[in-house]
Amino acid sequence: MREVIILIKNAVGRELPEMIGTYQVRPFAGIDSDCSSDQPVMSNRRLSTVKPGEEKLQPGLKAAVEASGLKDGMTISFHHSFREGDQVIGRVLSVIKELGIKGLKFAPSAVVNIKNPSIVDYVKDGTIASIEASGIRGELGDAVLGGVMDEPVILRPHGARPRAIEAGELSIDVAFIGASAADDYGNATGLVGPNACGALGYSFIDAMTAGKVIVITDHLVEYPCIPISISQEYVDYVVVVDSIGDTAKIGAGAARVTKNPRDLLIAKRAVEVMAASRRFTDGFVFQTGAGAISIACTKYLEEKMEERGVKASMALGGIPAAIVEMHEKGLVRTVACSQSFDAVAAKAIVDYPGIIEIDNSLYANPARKGCMLNRETFGILAALEVDIDFNVNILTGSNGEMMGGLGGGPDVAAGAQISIVVLPIVRGRIPSVVKKVFTCCTPGDTVAVVITEAGIALNPNHKNYQELKEDLEKTSLKLVTIEELRQTAEGLTGTPKPIECTDKITCIVEYRDGTVLDVIREIKKQD
Amino acid sequence: MREVIILIKNAVGRELPEMIGTYQVRPFAGIDSDCSSDQPVMSNRRLSTVKPGEEKLQPGLKAAVEASGLKDGMTISFHHSFREGDQVIGRVLSVIKELGIKGLKFAPSAVVNIKNPSIVDYVKDGTIASIEASGIRGELGDAVLGGVMDEPVILRPHGARPRAIEAGELSIDVAFIGASAADDYGNATGLVGPNACGALGYSFIDAMTAGKVIVITDHLVEYPCIPISISQEYVDYVVVVDSIGDTAKIGAGAARVTKNPRDLLIAKRAVEVMAASRRFTDGFVFQTGAGAISIACTKYLEEKMEERGVKASMALGGIPAAIVEMHEKGLVRTVACSQSFDAVAAKAIVDYPGIIEIDNSLYANPARKGCMLNRETFGILAALEVDIDFNVNILTGSNGEMMGGLGGGPDVAAGAQISIVVLPIVRGRIPSVVKKVFTCCTPGDTVAVVITEAGIALNPNHKNYQELKEDLEKTSLKLVTIEELRQTAEGLTGTPKPIECTDKITCIVEYRDGTVLDVIREIKKQD
Repeated sequence: MREVIILIKNAVGRELPEMIGTYQVRPFAGIDSDCSSDQPVMSNRRLSTVKPGEEKLQPGLKAAVEASGLKDGMTISFHHSFREGDQVIGRVLSVIKELGIKGLKFAPSAVVNIKNPSIVDYVKDGTIASIEASGIRGELGDAVLGGVMDEPVILRPHGARPRAIEAGELSIDVAFIGASAADDYGNATGLVGPNACGALGYSFIDAMTAGKVIVITDHLVEYPCIPISISQEYVDYVVVVDSIGDTAKIGAGAARVTKNPRDLLIAKRAVEVMAASRRFTDGFVFQTGAGAISIACTKYLEEKMEERGVKASMALGGIPAAIVEMHEKGLVRTVACSQSFDAVAAKAIVDYPGIIEIDNSLYANPARKGCMLNRETFGILAALEVDIDFNVNILTGSNGEMMGGLGGGPDVAAGAQISIVVLPIVRGRIPSVVKKVFTCCTPGDTVAVVITEAGIALNPNHKNYQELKEDLEKTSLKLVTIEELRQTAEGLTGTPKPIECTDKITCIVEYRDGTVLDVIREIKKQD
Repeated sequence: MREVIILIKNAVGRELPEMIGTYQVRPFAGIDSDCSSDQPVMSNRRLSTVKPGEEKLQPGLKAAVEASGLKDGMTISFHHSFREGDQVIGRVLSVIKELGIKGLKFAPSAVVNIKNPSIVDYVKDGTIASIEASGIRGELGDAVLGGVMDEPVILRPHGARPRAIEAGELSIDVAFIGASAADDYGNATGLVGPNACGALGYSFIDAMTAGKVIVITDHLVEYPCIPISISQEYVDYVVVVDSIGDTAKIGAGAARVTKNPRDLLIAKRAVEVMAASRRFTDGFVFQTGAGAISIACTKYLEEKMEERGVKASMALGGIPAAIVEMHEKGLVRTVACSQSFDAVAAKAIVDYPGIIEIDNSLYANPARKGCMLNRETFGILAALEVDIDFNVNILTGSNGEMMGGLGGGPDVAAGAQISIVVLPIVRGRIPSVVKKVFTCCTPGDTVAVVITEAGIALNPNHKNYQELKEDLEKTSLKLVTIEELRQTAEGLTGTPKPIECTDKITCIVEYRDGTVLDVIREIKKQD
């Protein structure tokens, strides 16, 4: 018997099947697509009567999981605000395994690495049958690309996750929310307590829409817990554990500081591009984000703003200490934190009325009535690869290893007036500017400019190309074409050998609107 | 032809038809009923794509109403945070009338009185065809009881409104939200600006669930407006008007201060009852609420707490300046404001991290996973009448005039461990303690104690009767039966002549769970 698979080419030229198992592919149709719908927003939350006197505090995780009614095949969720320091996911999965619950859909905001056992172990033993997240970096990612899972992993950018939930594409049965302080009735926060992790921006949609919500804390406080990030009205059960996470490791993974001179040069260039724009005026809005170069941008931006006497009205997204400092200096009037990248940023939300915790939907959801990214002037995006169509790859490395998560990148690029991709043209012996990215994570048409140590390339297909070109031509900044950058890169490294894959699709990369931007096929084992 | 109407007696003994027009009556079945449902919560909000660069600011109210797509027969909503000072409702209705839109369902959190034209005029001219609110005091109320409307008005307590919305019983097409500060993208608040009205607790559910949301402000600020009470992600349009309300009139209506010695005596007694309870210990939670006596209680409570060295963990609900003062003195650790009763209380939310604005659902919704009222130790309730079954009437006066709104009274009584009704036994020549209240607004079984100047009556059917009895018997407070109070009252006034009504039902009084507690029939015109 011959199987005929019809492939459709989407708007970034990727060939996709119509169906991937039971998943119906809606091919990416371009950046002007619309997420609107006539159907009311969906929720898995039910009307629920909790009567006066009824208690939510459970004697332990096992009791809470049992009380939640979690069953085989259901969907569970977590936030990743502790990043590599998370201790909630491991605790919960081990209890679930102990209870013999199998075949779950694991749908955290992003997968963080846990050890002994790892997420891969829970996949192998059947506890986890499918995964939906913004990223699956590390051991799990590599195992997925190696074909460990039967069902493809669905990867969505941060803003798309709440959209998918309200569109009914992802329906959470039980949400587990780690909180650094909580009371016995479920009011919870990440802003205070000995292990404060900062903004719980990812958890708001889970709390508001999950069937059951379990708050897990290592710091139980007198009722009511203040501030209230996640409110009691959405919480079914509260569990106290020894420790929910190691705040020292929040900076690990995506959010780290660089001293690499090349990276610093790129960061400096990025700020020079921002400062050259006519939009660099009082009241601008920016996001420098996570990633080594991005975080370095913040420091240079501060200097440039002081030098030019320009003040921003808002910084947003994941927030590091450097942005808090800019707020303290009066350079940034408001700071909207969907996550906090360090302890200083976490604490600042409590200390300053102008620094606020925001729901990840408010930050990035393309299907609410305008997210904050829509008002962003400048957005910095990290990248592993960019291609001559300005498509960005933030997921897969040169050997087909899983290197990162989608994060908010596709959202930032779509929202910002000037979206700036920063990356070195080569990393080791690997070119970063290529003919065609291995995985398209952000469509090139939403990228205004690519900044490297070897020059700055403007995207002629970006909506603000003409304006930015005029502005940059008034400066001494070196403008090159993206093709020139590719040639420079490949001149240094040679043309890389293509990564060889099987036909098996291991990951589906969804765009903000739920269409499929790309897929990642199983990487062929090297002999 | 003879029409046979079958009447059913509900759990407070009220006789109700099975249908009232198209309204299907679910008779009140007792205070242990459950609002839970297996159906997911409902919303009238749709997924919506607002793209970067798209604007929300409309040139005027007319343009905003047109943009919203408001049509004949749709449902519109407002908050009543400005109380008698509101200038939004009048502006909006006059524009709607000008546009010739008819037959609307008017569903504000409560009806406030506007003049020239009044709400009654909009009913008479067909702009408004039906009304759902927590109260319709004043001219409209009297007109409704006089039979001006074809459809009965549905009255719900504060906590029941968001429940009804999420249950799909009330679906708002266009919400109009007056905000004392807002930016051009819809972030809005009542906490700052020249006409700050305080907490917008009633508007959260409207913003989150209405089909279209229009923010109306008289103080447009630079993006982003901080603090954000109502977030841009829920707002479709923004309109700037000259003035949204007169903050000096917020205290008018329900929230006023008394110097009446009898009222002060009752307030003092109420605090003595609280202080006699074993629950008057550190960490208790209380609500003194609106109404002359209730507000007087606050001052006495402060003195008693200082005298006894007892501190509260929370005060909640509608908040006056006196509670803010208790927070400043360290007597009340947190204050959760669903509304603000004066300018001091409004400003305090910005000034103190321990004083927070809360969604009215968090305050009182019986169908979320536990509202804050569930944690209330002592709740003070105002009343027009109470009967020998402890049923409370807060709506209708002795001549069948509409005197008040349900407010949060039924919610407070159900939530609080010790619910305290305060009222004088007579008002003028009218007894307040009667055999049977004209309108049952709060079921007697949720009332722990009735406090009058003529004695204190404990409700033997209340869940905490035995405990409170033991505690009060240790004091010199005078305990009487409710029947004794009635006799004393009627001994002073004589037995009042029953109010005569026709068969036409003008108002349906829903309980928190959506069952019908009572109806108000058309008052017979006096000759």
